[in-house]
Amino acid sequence: MNTTEDNGVRSGTLYEEVAARVTRLIDEGTFQPGDRLSSVRKLSQQLRVSISTVMEAYRVLEDRGLIEARPQSGYYVRLARQDVPAEPAVSHPSPIPTAVRISDFHGMLMRDIGDPKLLHLGAAIPNPELLPIGKLSRTIAAVTRRHGVLSVAYNGPLGAEALRVQIARRALSAGCTLAPDQILTTCGSQEAISLALRAVCSPGDTVAIESPIYYGILQCIEQLGLRALEIPTSPRTGISLEALRYALDENKVSACVVVSNFSNPLGGCMPDDHKRQLAEMLAEREIPLIEDDIYGDLGFADERPKTCKAFDRDGWVILCSSYSKTLAPGYRVGWAAPGRFLDKMTRLKLTSSLACASPTQLAVADFLANGGYDHHLRKTRKVYARQVQLMGQAVGRAFPAGSCVTRPEGGYVLWVECPPRVDSLKLYEWALTAGVTIAPGPLFSAKQKYRNCIRLNAAFWSDDVERAIMRLGQTADAMGK
Amino acid sequence: MNTTEDNGVRSGTLYEEVAARVTRLIDEGTFQPGDRLSSVRKLSQQLRVSISTVMEAYRVLEDRGLIEARPQSGYYVRLARQDVPAEPAVSHPSPIPTAVRISDFHGMLMRDIGDPKLLHLGAAIPNPELLPIGKLSRTIAAVTRRHGVLSVAYNGPLGAEALRVQIARRALSAGCTLAPDQILTTCGSQEAISLALRAVCSPGDTVAIESPIYYGILQCIEQLGLRALEIPTSPRTGISLEALRYALDENKVSACVVVSNFSNPLGGCMPDDHKRQLAEMLAEREIPLIEDDIYGDLGFADERPKTCKAFDRDGWVILCSSYSKTLAPGYRVGWAAPGRFLDKMTRLKLTSSLACASPTQLAVADFLANGGYDHHLRKTRKVYARQVQLMGQAVGRAFPAGSCVTRPEGGYVLWVECPPRVDSLKLYEWALTAGVTIAPGPLFSAKQKYRNCIRLNAAFWSDDVERAIMRLGQTADAMGK
Repeated sequence: MNTTEDNGVRSGTLYEEVAARVTRLIDEGTFQPGDRLSSVRKLSQQLRVSISTVMEAYRVLEDRGLIEARPQSGYYVRLARQDVPAEPAVSHPSPIPTAVRISDFHGMLMRDIGDPKLLHLGAAIPNPELLPIGKLSRTIAAVTRRHGVLSVAYNGPLGAEALRVQIARRALSAGCTLAPDQILTTCGSQEAISLALRAVCSPGDTVAIESPIYYGILQCIEQLGLRALEIPTSPRTGISLEALRYALDENKVSACVVVSNFSNPLGGCMPDDHKRQLAEMLAEREIPLIEDDIYGDLGFADERPKTCKAFDRDGWVILCSSYSKTLAPGYRVGWAAPGRFLDKMTRLKLTSSLACASPTQLAVADFLANGGYDHHLRKTRKVYARQVQLMGQAVGRAFPAGSCVTRPEGGYVLWVECPPRVDSLKLYEWALTAGVTIAPGPLFSAKQKYRNCIRLNAAFWSDDVERAIMRLGQTADAMGK
Repeated sequence: MNTTEDNGVRSGTLYEEVAARVTRLIDEGTFQPGDRLSSVRKLSQQLRVSISTVMEAYRVLEDRGLIEARPQSGYYVRLARQDVPAEPAVSHPSPIPTAVRISDFHGMLMRDIGDPKLLHLGAAIPNPELLPIGKLSRTIAAVTRRHGVLSVAYNGPLGAEALRVQIARRALSAGCTLAPDQILTTCGSQEAISLALRAVCSPGDTVAIESPIYYGILQCIEQLGLRALEIPTSPRTGISLEALRYALDENKVSACVVVSNFSNPLGGCMPDDHKRQLAEMLAEREIPLIEDDIYGDLGFADERPKTCKAFDRDGWVILCSSYSKTLAPGYRVGWAAPGRFLDKMTRLKLTSSLACASPTQLAVADFLANGGYDHHLRKTRKVYARQVQLMGQAVGRAFPAGSCVTRPEGGYVLWVECPPRVDSLKLYEWALTAGVTIAPGPLFSAKQKYRNCIRLNAAFWSDDVERAIMRLGQTADAMGK
């Protein structure tokens, strides 16, 4: 290849040459499906061509369906056509608020995670091999020894200050300027969401939610006697703002709940502009936005996505998160930045659980300050990115023709939409007999839609998992035939 | 003294001789006010007189007001007349259910406990010097190392099995036969009570409660939109069964809440027969009884009191407790034995906090199994018994004439009823400026009664505390004069 940049006359040839070179790198496996390609700047340096030439080459390859651009991330090799089913379309839930009635799969999934004989593709638990177990154990030993009385005493109403300081510092990278005293620590993100819903809703009220949505949120809505209004949601960009606006015009809505970054189960990440619009739309109407950012630290791109809270001017956004997906689910260290609802949520916290466990709060605070959390995240995200891709490919090979699978850019869950004849509840039962858990689709909808969908946890990957996906796919394929 | 037992003719003299001897032992300080006297059997052996002679002697001394019998415990030297104010009478709350509205003292008391410059006579925190801090720190270090993945993983819905096994074993001494799978672990007793109220009541329902009652329960009732029906309560024997029966006939009541052993704030311990009657009365009417036994392990007598749950035949009693008062408030290790409401409370738990912190559950389980919990309790109870007595005496010396103080037989809180002119809210404010916290009476009533009462925490005792009591008493005395 001619490595000196030429004038405009030859650049037409040049970008084709670059494109051909990249194509060969992909064909030969230097870059594999799902891998991120060299950045435009880097490739232009490596090949000594101009940046615009590389951009043109990448655009050509994108048109040919060989690579894809991901916002704020770069260019990636697309999954090979034969391996990758289509993405699911934007959801179309019912526009009528519903009293939530979902069966007790939640408890079953939680019970099953204690069973070491099962392959856990159901509950969205992180892979223990990616958790800093030894380091946390040494940390909790050190902090309880060092803090003495503090380690056995009640935390104050907001929780351990050392922890809130660390949370406030890290919130900067999510676009939030928070003071430690604006943060209420909670028993995981689940308690944060539960307290938030109790703070802003009364029984009978309607809550607008993504659809599908994490069943833990849905069951909380059910148990508080609230009604769920499911809003169409894109597996790429999250809740549909147009549909939400329409729904708000038609219904009296007391709160809106979204998982803004790498939503569970769809995996979508709301673009910044959507986040801003959502925050503004709700603040204008004085409707609180409950934002669950529990997967926000697990994006596959280098840059950590912002939160809707970053665009919150008047305290209408209640940001909820935890370290359950990145450090230790069992430590139950979560938090909320409740904005104008801080006092109310704090009072509710006092009577619902009084305080959080001190040793685990102190341990996480110490880990965040000194434990190399960022390094840990980089390692973890890389593994999950790879496994999400591998599992997506496996689904493509195994599941019946016409199945779709999401392409999340963070987190570790996949949403698989099978042909309508597939019954995910039956598939769940079959899988359990085969030693595998999956999360059936109806769990994720107040109206128990998505009967032909399942959520898979890609935090685990091994030959066993791959074989399980294969058998799941074959079983799904045999259904209704 | 003639040490050989004589016939009936002389026994009249004999028991007087024994009584005179015991009186001298008391006068000379061998047995001090509040001390337990030798048991009847032991004294009969020591003095070589018959058991009936000693019993007669003790009865005489009891009549003279020098000693007092405590059920299941023995005979004690009474507090000297000049030191000990009278006991408060049975409470007389309003017979009309009330929407609860109490100001945010709860949060203030919780905030204040983090301030090392204050003397903590307000919130009912245990004395850290009596908590096994070093042993717990070594235990949590050992269990997180030993259990590895388990220490960072989610607990199942009911909580760590090792902990539930220990709880079930210990429940035997409270008269309960529980299986580990009938126990739901919670984030302290507070979460247990909150989940219990949510499981059995709907907003607007009426809950029958002791009066005065712990403000954490009262605020929980408020926040769940329930109404409180305050029932007259004796500082000795707890809730009045007659008054409760009458109230149940007049009102539709959805639940009843009692602190059956060493109630907070009155310190009363329901006699076994009352417990049985209460359990039966409510079961007949199919009204759930929420029983808080958080102080049950802290009785001053040798024998651990039973719970109402011991008399529960059909699962209508929801027993709640925790290790917050005996081991580590900040570990947040509590539990419920919810009887017929187990499934419902477990589902509520999943969406309100999902699970409890694993490391603290494993540490408490290990401490209960191997840490010498019973030995620890014996030591702790002895100190609290002494301090409760000393603080009661100090109150007697310091507070205005006409003040009353409770004589709890367990736990570590005292309830002081001052003359009507004393305003406990003003006393609270004055005390805070003097570096002391107290809990003002209106906190303990839905109708904000007990304005002239305060609750004092006797877990702490020192010259500073004694001086604080003196100044509190003087300030109270000066009020309204």
